[in-house]
Amino acid sequence: MNSDQQIAELQRGADEVLLAADLVKKLKRGVPLRVKAGFDPTAPDLHLGHTVLLTKMRRFQDFGHEVTFLIGDFTSLIGDPSGRNVTRPALSAEEIQTNARTYEAQVFKVLDRGKTRIDFNSRWLSKLTAEDVVRLSAHYTVARMLERDDFSKRYRAGVPISIHEFLYPLAQGYDSVAMRADVELGGTDQKFNLLVGRTLQEAYGQEPQVVMTVPLLVGTDGVNKMSKSLGNYIGITEDPDSMFGKIMSISDELMWRYFELLSFRPLAEIATLKREASDGRNPRDIKFELAREIVARFHDAAAAERAHRNFIARVSQKAVPDDLPLRVIAVDGAGLRVANLLKEAGLAVSTSEGNRKIDEGAVRIDGTRVTDKGLTLKAGAEHVIQVGAKRFARLRLEPKA
Amino acid sequence: MNSDQQIAELQRGADEVLLAADLVKKLKRGVPLRVKAGFDPTAPDLHLGHTVLLTKMRRFQDFGHEVTFLIGDFTSLIGDPSGRNVTRPALSAEEIQTNARTYEAQVFKVLDRGKTRIDFNSRWLSKLTAEDVVRLSAHYTVARMLERDDFSKRYRAGVPISIHEFLYPLAQGYDSVAMRADVELGGTDQKFNLLVGRTLQEAYGQEPQVVMTVPLLVGTDGVNKMSKSLGNYIGITEDPDSMFGKIMSISDELMWRYFELLSFRPLAEIATLKREASDGRNPRDIKFELAREIVARFHDAAAAERAHRNFIARVSQKAVPDDLPLRVIAVDGAGLRVANLLKEAGLAVSTSEGNRKIDEGAVRIDGTRVTDKGLTLKAGAEHVIQVGAKRFARLRLEPKA
Repeated sequence: MNSDQQIAELQRGADEVLLAADLVKKLKRGVPLRVKAGFDPTAPDLHLGHTVLLTKMRRFQDFGHEVTFLIGDFTSLIGDPSGRNVTRPALSAEEIQTNARTYEAQVFKVLDRGKTRIDFNSRWLSKLTAEDVVRLSAHYTVARMLERDDFSKRYRAGVPISIHEFLYPLAQGYDSVAMRADVELGGTDQKFNLLVGRTLQEAYGQEPQVVMTVPLLVGTDGVNKMSKSLGNYIGITEDPDSMFGKIMSISDELMWRYFELLSFRPLAEIATLKREASDGRNPRDIKFELAREIVARFHDAAAAERAHRNFIARVSQKAVPDDLPLRVIAVDGAGLRVANLLKEAGLAVSTSEGNRKIDEGAVRIDGTRVTDKGLTLKAGAEHVIQVGAKRFARLRLEPKA
Repeated sequence: MNSDQQIAELQRGADEVLLAADLVKKLKRGVPLRVKAGFDPTAPDLHLGHTVLLTKMRRFQDFGHEVTFLIGDFTSLIGDPSGRNVTRPALSAEEIQTNARTYEAQVFKVLDRGKTRIDFNSRWLSKLTAEDVVRLSAHYTVARMLERDDFSKRYRAGVPISIHEFLYPLAQGYDSVAMRADVELGGTDQKFNLLVGRTLQEAYGQEPQVVMTVPLLVGTDGVNKMSKSLGNYIGITEDPDSMFGKIMSISDELMWRYFELLSFRPLAEIATLKREASDGRNPRDIKFELAREIVARFHDAAAAERAHRNFIARVSQKAVPDDLPLRVIAVDGAGLRVANLLKEAGLAVSTSEGNRKIDEGAVRIDGTRVTDKGLTLKAGAEHVIQVGAKRFARLRLEPKA
């Protein structure tokens, strides 16, 4: 991949890059960049939304950069000392270690284990003295801190902001100083804090980091951000069938966003898929590829295969036999009309019977009723074909040799 | 002294006491109170204005309380890390020690050396970790901090406030926690910071300190607060003659304020002096007593005596002989009219000549021309009497045995 392609891959799907020109400059030096992303050490139970950031980290790893998964244990050791926010209790060092191990079990489904450095910001933050904190906080003003969206809203509304809340963004910014980060990745809601890092690095005589924010992933409902409480999430520990089914339930439009944000396929491959779709390839087959990639990532290839088969069977009809044998049918580049397929599969004695069955509304492919006798199926996919309530075939369409 | 008198003496001249009822409650326990006052470790060159606070501390010492002269070396080790304020450079530990010794040489003119504890807030503040600072700062809100007069003005005016400036009042407040202070004394401009101490002590489960602010001393011009830059100050290291003369230059009205704020005399004695003044005693004589007390404090009794004599001589006339012998004249309770005094002192052959000389405008007492033949001098003072340009007498009027 040439350098322009690398830059495009690294910025792919990013919400904002500050400053993209700096990123190019840093990349052109040819030295691996120090890339940082911070995570709360709360007990993780990740869903695909969380993996957008991990996927971005993975992309940097794939291009040879040094990626640190930074666990922000320092502040969690403290919790919310004001005692106002009962949802943020202080975590013990032991709980943090347990949570860190839970993280590891999950994030290495996306990150490259051999290329990931896991670190804890308590390593340097707990060594700071009161004097260091005073020096640190001299580099940022109250007015700028109050510009942060949530602070400014609370201040205007008269909702108390404790002074220690001003110290958290400074602590996070100091992480970048301590790590001499070249790039910090985070969610869009982290933008302010990531920019504090730039300011502090400059104050400490360092080249400021590039800040890259990744967008929130839209959930399976296609409307709201993926979230557990909205029920529109796909958990990364969900069983293969559930995960596969949920991915298949997203709209064709959202599918492309998922490809951009979650798939490890290079942009060029995705462009090819898009061309195929506009050339008439069934989007459902393309979505199968996405679902198989994601399920294989969080489980394995065999599980993805099984989930695919089960999905087809399940959506075809509850009555699809579990032990339906797979038949391979060779098709040429032009593909095969449904009536021809029915005949080849032994589900109709002739193409005319096949077409009649279509007219009767008795034919389903992967559970969806076929109404268009002109529908052509191409090689490269697997389908459950059904005629009436009882006759089934599981077919794999392969290109003619 | 009974307890009510003690309470009156302790609150004497105070600008504000928060809360006076708490002070009474603490005093009534009969346990010595821990009294704290903080000082910057900048090179001190004190004037009487600074000693208002020291005098208040002394009053607490006189009633058996534990007074700590707290040197705020912690923040000065840091200076102004933003580098914006060039007038506040960081002080080295050595400079701070030197300044502390300079302080000691000056403040023990007012404080009781044997009863004064000198401490440095770096003792506990430098031991705080970043975590401690976060916990500390959780106990105060941004909105309350921005209520501080100078902060709110700067914030509204768009003048940057660095976040570390929010940490200083918290550090000062934490001093009260570390010392478990019962009372904190300070200037009126310190009121906000002293109240932070109350808030933090409560947050740390302590009984909040009583906050007592002392007023700014008006300078010799009778108008502005005493300040070196205004030239209306009386430095505590000034030579006795200069100090004596400056005190004598203040108005009679301001004199009573100085008595209240600077004199060690109990309130009852001052009340007596006021009665004497309203009974016709020359305010000048009363001012002499103030000047002698103050000069004796910062030099010694003999120096005060000489300064008194020199002052009389100086203001009487430049020509007053340096070696003018002192004569003692006994007067009864009713006092002595000026003409009689002139006769007794041998400056007139008869009281009629004395009265004629007064009519001629030739008679001066302590440099001031006498115009009222009815003026009566009472026992208890020393004066230089002058008739014409050449005839002088230094007289001490003592009560008839």
